[in-house]
Amino acid sequence: MRIAQIAPLFESVPPRRYGGTERVVSWLTEELVAMGHQVTLFATGDSRTSAELVAVREQACRFVPNFETNCAPYARALELVWQRAPEFDVLHFHIDFHPFSLFSRQPVPFLTTLHGRLDLPWVPEVYGLFPDVPLVSISDNQRRPMPQLNWATTVRHGMPTDLLRPLAREGEDYLAFLGRISPEKGIEAAIRIAAAAGLKLKVAAKIGEEDITYYRDVVSPLFDGQRVEYLGEIDDSDKVAFLSGARALLFPIAWPEPFGLVMIEAMACGCPVVAFPHGSVPEVVEDGRTGYVVANEAEAVAALDRIASLDRATVRQRFEERWSARRMAEDYVAVYERLCRERRTATWRQRAA
Amino acid sequence: MRIAQIAPLFESVPPRRYGGTERVVSWLTEELVAMGHQVTLFATGDSRTSAELVAVREQACRFVPNFETNCAPYARALELVWQRAPEFDVLHFHIDFHPFSLFSRQPVPFLTTLHGRLDLPWVPEVYGLFPDVPLVSISDNQRRPMPQLNWATTVRHGMPTDLLRPLAREGEDYLAFLGRISPEKGIEAAIRIAAAAGLKLKVAAKIGEEDITYYRDVVSPLFDGQRVEYLGEIDDSDKVAFLSGARALLFPIAWPEPFGLVMIEAMACGCPVVAFPHGSVPEVVEDGRTGYVVANEAEAVAALDRIASLDRATVRQRFEERWSARRMAEDYVAVYERLCRERRTATWRQRAA
Repeated sequence: MRIAQIAPLFESVPPRRYGGTERVVSWLTEELVAMGHQVTLFATGDSRTSAELVAVREQACRFVPNFETNCAPYARALELVWQRAPEFDVLHFHIDFHPFSLFSRQPVPFLTTLHGRLDLPWVPEVYGLFPDVPLVSISDNQRRPMPQLNWATTVRHGMPTDLLRPLAREGEDYLAFLGRISPEKGIEAAIRIAAAAGLKLKVAAKIGEEDITYYRDVVSPLFDGQRVEYLGEIDDSDKVAFLSGARALLFPIAWPEPFGLVMIEAMACGCPVVAFPHGSVPEVVEDGRTGYVVANEAEAVAALDRIASLDRATVRQRFEERWSARRMAEDYVAVYERLCRERRTATWRQRAA
Repeated sequence: MRIAQIAPLFESVPPRRYGGTERVVSWLTEELVAMGHQVTLFATGDSRTSAELVAVREQACRFVPNFETNCAPYARALELVWQRAPEFDVLHFHIDFHPFSLFSRQPVPFLTTLHGRLDLPWVPEVYGLFPDVPLVSISDNQRRPMPQLNWATTVRHGMPTDLLRPLAREGEDYLAFLGRISPEKGIEAAIRIAAAAGLKLKVAAKIGEEDITYYRDVVSPLFDGQRVEYLGEIDDSDKVAFLSGARALLFPIAWPEPFGLVMIEAMACGCPVVAFPHGSVPEVVEDGRTGYVVANEAEAVAALDRIASLDRATVRQRFEERWSARRMAEDYVAVYERLCRERRTATWRQRAA
């Protein structure tokens, strides 16, 4: 198929540093190319891809955070996509509500994967106006605040199976916390769970600008370097050892996580996940197989007692079966094809009428 | 005519506090209604108008300054306007580039007044994509960075002639500075000019969040309460006495001001303007009649020497002749009618072909 992928412009594809959406768009794009599709990626010019790259703007927007520069690049992206739309079989947007009005009024099938949470106050104000626009959720749970939208399907994320591969587990025994240091990611709960289980916690996490005060006042006093060790941010090459060596990944989140890539990153390294049942968690963790979905900290501590009974090879195997970029890309191709069929049928009906 | 006015959503129309664009949209809307046109105003729900009000969102966005809430309301506005577009003869947008892609692909004539400066780095990136969209500039000078765009005309701002009326000049002699305390508005130059002229300066100005450090470190030490008195922000009712009582308004700007409402506010009170020749200034101040356009601070001091020779009644008269909301509204109706004629001709040609 001739497929346009339209990425966010805040970061490059893939991102230089953090940026879950941009990583997923990159993985999907590369996998579609590997499957033989003709893919065009609309993204910032500092992106790297084996697809055709259309540079919407030279550089990622992350360093120009004001109103005009945030909205304006999307206006440009939409116009560039519109001008080339007839060249594609399907247009796949990853930029929230931006394409809805314009691309509802043209004939090329389009869909939008929503990557964010939908329980924010402004969401119904905008999304509620577009009950017919085909959407993809990244977990079923993500849809919950807006079930009335036109959900085409759920396509859960996947990642390249060779990106992270398990190493033999050796050295000291510890639990892993990976991601961001913020209240909703549950870093305090993770520290308490590790302490109650009598295990060391290693924390590999970003501190976002909005969380600097929280880190300084609340979290950093808990990092003693002994029972709780802070490693800073780590990249993919460090993740392999970090996750392969951990007894389990703690994911005691306190928010409706739309997907949560770190869970499947852990599984890729054979590391089971102990997680609270918010957001996508029950859809990602197979309880008793790739980890445990627990209701509270006490249950988490109990789960850590029996976590050695989980087979780490099985965790990796389930990762390959459920969370590969190929599976994700195939899911998307299925929905692309369905949208094209539906569009053809609609056009045929229209002409016949 | 059946006219849609589409306002910014950052402030209500008119704004609670500062907001030049929202004030102008309000004045234009009310004047068009007074002229017998059927006007619909798309704005925030806390706006006040004698036109039909479509509340795009309940409240002004100024208190929710993050990415999604800034872009999302515009996505909603565009969709709401699109859905009702066939009810109107013309759509008049005041929301920058937002309408360009969508409204280029529908038959109702539309135009966009650009209220901001166009010499910013991101401007060509977006505006350059739309060489055919009809635009209105608020001064000829405003066009200078982007002369190649499709400028339909310049319509300079106007204001209701009864909003500010001159009072008799009495009491102490002083110069006035009105607006914002920021480097580009020239507050330091104003203080130096007043000192060199041996006159008191009264400053009625807002301190924006971005200018707090500048105010604290640079400007506030210059406010001695004697030679330079700071009055804080003032509203329209205070402006009458403030401007009527001043020997002149100092407008020693250091940036390409697209219009500069304070100049015509001063004229409304019969107060002449001494201004640097940036941006719209030479188009607004009639040198030797409603004030003096001067090249530097020395010329400003010299101009203040001869400012008593300007007749304040003439300043007010020229305000009424050149800067009324009625004149502005009539200018806009002329361009609305021209766009409708051109559209009809184009449609006729298309059908004939």
